[in-house]
Amino acid sequence: MRTDYCGLIDSRYLGQTVTIKGWAHRRRDHGGVIFIDLRDREGLVQVVINPDTPEAFTTADSSRNEYVLEITGLVRARPEGAANKNLISGEIEIVATEIKILNTAVTPPFQIDDENLSENVRLQNRVIDLRRPVMQKNLRLRYRIAMLIRNYLDSRGFIDIETPMLTRSTPEGARDYLVPSRVHDGQFFALPQSPQLFKQLLMVAGFDRYYQIVKCFRDEDLRADRQPEFTQIDIETSFLNEHEIMDITESMAKHVFKEGIGVELTDFPRMTYADAMYYYGSDKPDLRVTLKFVELTDLMKTEEFKVFRSAAEMANGRVVGLRVPGGAALSRKEIDEYTKFVAIYGAKGLAYIKVNDVTKLSNDEHSGLQSPIVKNLSEAALKEIIARTGATDGDLIFFGADKAKVVNEAIGALRIKIGHEKGEAGGYFAQGWKPMWVIDFPMFEHDEEADRWTACHHPFTAPQDGHEDMLDNNPGACIAKAYDMVLNGSEIGGGSIRIYREEMQSKVFRALKIDAEEAQNKFGFLLENLQFGAPPHGGLAFGLDRLVTLMVGAESIRDVIAFPKTQRAQCLLTDAPNSVDEKQLRELHIRLRQKAEVAAS
Amino acid sequence: MRTDYCGLIDSRYLGQTVTIKGWAHRRRDHGGVIFIDLRDREGLVQVVINPDTPEAFTTADSSRNEYVLEITGLVRARPEGAANKNLISGEIEIVATEIKILNTAVTPPFQIDDENLSENVRLQNRVIDLRRPVMQKNLRLRYRIAMLIRNYLDSRGFIDIETPMLTRSTPEGARDYLVPSRVHDGQFFALPQSPQLFKQLLMVAGFDRYYQIVKCFRDEDLRADRQPEFTQIDIETSFLNEHEIMDITESMAKHVFKEGIGVELTDFPRMTYADAMYYYGSDKPDLRVTLKFVELTDLMKTEEFKVFRSAAEMANGRVVGLRVPGGAALSRKEIDEYTKFVAIYGAKGLAYIKVNDVTKLSNDEHSGLQSPIVKNLSEAALKEIIARTGATDGDLIFFGADKAKVVNEAIGALRIKIGHEKGEAGGYFAQGWKPMWVIDFPMFEHDEEADRWTACHHPFTAPQDGHEDMLDNNPGACIAKAYDMVLNGSEIGGGSIRIYREEMQSKVFRALKIDAEEAQNKFGFLLENLQFGAPPHGGLAFGLDRLVTLMVGAESIRDVIAFPKTQRAQCLLTDAPNSVDEKQLRELHIRLRQKAEVAAS
Repeated sequence: MRTDYCGLIDSRYLGQTVTIKGWAHRRRDHGGVIFIDLRDREGLVQVVINPDTPEAFTTADSSRNEYVLEITGLVRARPEGAANKNLISGEIEIVATEIKILNTAVTPPFQIDDENLSENVRLQNRVIDLRRPVMQKNLRLRYRIAMLIRNYLDSRGFIDIETPMLTRSTPEGARDYLVPSRVHDGQFFALPQSPQLFKQLLMVAGFDRYYQIVKCFRDEDLRADRQPEFTQIDIETSFLNEHEIMDITESMAKHVFKEGIGVELTDFPRMTYADAMYYYGSDKPDLRVTLKFVELTDLMKTEEFKVFRSAAEMANGRVVGLRVPGGAALSRKEIDEYTKFVAIYGAKGLAYIKVNDVTKLSNDEHSGLQSPIVKNLSEAALKEIIARTGATDGDLIFFGADKAKVVNEAIGALRIKIGHEKGEAGGYFAQGWKPMWVIDFPMFEHDEEADRWTACHHPFTAPQDGHEDMLDNNPGACIAKAYDMVLNGSEIGGGSIRIYREEMQSKVFRALKIDAEEAQNKFGFLLENLQFGAPPHGGLAFGLDRLVTLMVGAESIRDVIAFPKTQRAQCLLTDAPNSVDEKQLRELHIRLRQKAEVAAS
Repeated sequence: MRTDYCGLIDSRYLGQTVTIKGWAHRRRDHGGVIFIDLRDREGLVQVVINPDTPEAFTTADSSRNEYVLEITGLVRARPEGAANKNLISGEIEIVATEIKILNTAVTPPFQIDDENLSENVRLQNRVIDLRRPVMQKNLRLRYRIAMLIRNYLDSRGFIDIETPMLTRSTPEGARDYLVPSRVHDGQFFALPQSPQLFKQLLMVAGFDRYYQIVKCFRDEDLRADRQPEFTQIDIETSFLNEHEIMDITESMAKHVFKEGIGVELTDFPRMTYADAMYYYGSDKPDLRVTLKFVELTDLMKTEEFKVFRSAAEMANGRVVGLRVPGGAALSRKEIDEYTKFVAIYGAKGLAYIKVNDVTKLSNDEHSGLQSPIVKNLSEAALKEIIARTGATDGDLIFFGADKAKVVNEAIGALRIKIGHEKGEAGGYFAQGWKPMWVIDFPMFEHDEEADRWTACHHPFTAPQDGHEDMLDNNPGACIAKAYDMVLNGSEIGGGSIRIYREEMQSKVFRALKIDAEEAQNKFGFLLENLQFGAPPHGGLAFGLDRLVTLMVGAESIRDVIAFPKTQRAQCLLTDAPNSVDEKQLRELHIRLRQKAEVAAS
């Protein structure tokens, strides 16, 4: 039997005989001696095989990279100067007395320590890819984080209760993955987008505190960092208000960061949605970037400059400035690139003013302000812009003027981009962890196309106390008891206090133009059970994939998932999805549409 | 805020003011005072509301069963003689000073303490059903067991790694649940029947020790104790042999029983499959019943009695006796009922001999043996039967004679039935826990209908050392490195050492008549990766649902699952599966078969 993991043998083992099992990571011959770095999940250890153990030497000589070996040998100190500080085992080596080949290996498609692999190659050869130390580290840290969360929630009285995977399709929000029923001809299960209603029903059933680390499914076109199946840390509790829920989950997050990666998070600031949009144009501001929007809409209503004035006068328009300290040094080329960048978000241009001399705030050729637009603005406006932004010599001010949505997205994205590119040098970005809560989200947002209100969070979210009447007469002003946990510009969790009275739930359905029949049909089991004595309750769901991605510093959530799908929702390892037998389809009472069409023609 | 759970307030709290939140379990008026038993997940506490707190009294008076209440009051001792020993809170009561109705409730469909409910009513009203203390206890113990398992495996270096839910259909074994792909026209994902291949690939990737508590899916017609989705404790490890794996998981089971329900299990006996079939006619013997089969096949080959002789002479025939101590007292009616019972398993009759006097073993009218068949057997045979069974006066011997399969199933089932019904009185059954391992399963069983060999465990199971050659020339004799954990006659876990060399895997596929093309098509990704240096590995999977069912003493696995399906694979709470929009089907490139037929006609 193995006595130890390769990667954990250090100088405490000097003079001991050990047996290790692992993979031949690298083999080299040097001065008539063979060296094999043997690898297991804990890391590497150097094994020396001398010709004076001829049997072991012959076996070592016939071993190739990625062979699976069992090696017994004596731990000794490496020679003076040969230590490797990067390895736990770096001060020792093992002199082999016995080597057994447990399995051979054909040449792998790439070297395990190759760091320049395309993602396609990695996903096609995922098993070999997972041998790479970085992937081993990512998945082990993922596990550690999940266990820290479980143990934390357990200590607070939360209970993991499994909810069904084969459940009811309620086409609302994202598209469901469907599963045809064999027993019930023409009917379908859906895979859950979240256990939302089940966890609420568990509260009605009196379980008091629930959690689950659970797979959820959304059949959507995949953006860069989405997967068809993703893992949610799902939490629900009865009898606590939103602040108490935020307190518990904030202290959970602090615990996980401390124990998981040794980071002490400070208390999370709580910012209203309104403030987040006002200062950062985003409901998930990256507070590592300290730049803030400066509101100019009021000021521009009386200016002649049409670009700004028309935006300021629009019902949903907005004009903001973004002061970039030291930004006057930006080159024409850089500014052009930022202009192209904001165009992605729909901005039609990117006005700016370079501040060369704040003592000269005229709009003529003597101005200390350098910009194509200075001449279009009144001196009073220019003075007010400088006053509000607090700009000083050497700074630059970018402007956004459009529908508020476009301004917020474009200048919000610009704020992040310039912050990450220039902020460290400019003093307006600091590496580190900036968690926060965004609270007081609106209940609804207006879907322009469909001309109706949709739920910002989900239709089971409670309105703030005193906002109930606005559900009927002013839904846009109605604020929800909803909250998001945001970290470094990523939403890592979101939740709300839920509606716990049937009348209120029906009222919200009406505001969403879900009529009584539809509500009964889709959510009858919820409405019915809310009448049987539902406790006040609320909760939160974290995205485990994204949380771990941030914590390990990975580029993609695919780097923290053992067997992820591509952006075309395929598994390149197993080649799923694939075609199935006609017999299977017949049993499920379905046929392929294309086939049916061929058959009919 | 709540200061305490209702059910946990005991005499340590005397004189303290507490605030509790929960459900009005029962309300009664007695001598001008109102009593409310308030219930939360921890249990009940008695609240007294006096008319001298008029506001609280009025609120209490308007409260009905299952109202959600917040109550503040003073803890005092119950009057002399009014203590309730069944409750933790049984020695105290709370004198309410304040009551708030947090939510009202309509009259529930049944009383929470009603114990005579049909399962249909319970499943339709599952949320109310889950309020019943027994269901609260079951699901909390389920959670506790799962956490004990996690912490045990964690302490032994196992890592939970999530495997995909949307994966590849490999029609083998049970029927897959399919999920149509929207992105890939005409293709399907399958929900996993188990993460078998993924966990093996994680071993190839070097994770060394893996576990997962994971949903698996089988679209089969449901027997009494099956669910379409079930939860598996899935374990895999590299570099350990079958005995080492059994040792680890046995000690895990002991730990879980001890910490979970306070039961100390003794060491698990390890019995070969051959012995289990020989002595108990079952590969999952219930060792609480001490009765054993007595082999008589050899003896009956030379008897005239046709029923026994023809069975003994069949290639796959078997004749056994089953001695029932004290069984001579069985009535004609009881024996008739056992005869009907074995008929379920295909037995054409149930011969028996009552032993009245072992000193008279003749086959004539003076015989001390009472039975319709005594006259058909030779005296030598009768003596040998008594000798082999060890029967004494007052015993009864049942006989099975048929194909071995029928004998094993029929007499095996009879052994359990009679053991449970009569064994406690007869001294051949004892309540308690009888865990065991069944080992050395055959590699293959012969599918008579299809006239081919199928894998007993699964096609990735390794043969015993030295049995490799039999794969080609005598598959029926080939023994696998497979093992089942059996508890009280239920298989609670099963596993094997896996094949870790590509040549051996291909050889087993050939024995199963899976040709190279089919193997490549279905399992190409496995075969390929076995070549890249797969370590020796093996594992085990436990059925969590069944394990918990046994541990809590529930009647059905549905009693340890929050939201189970019926035997027709329906969720009566949410009414899943249900019909979906035509638009959803169109996006998935499928149509209903019946609709297509209607359209074509």
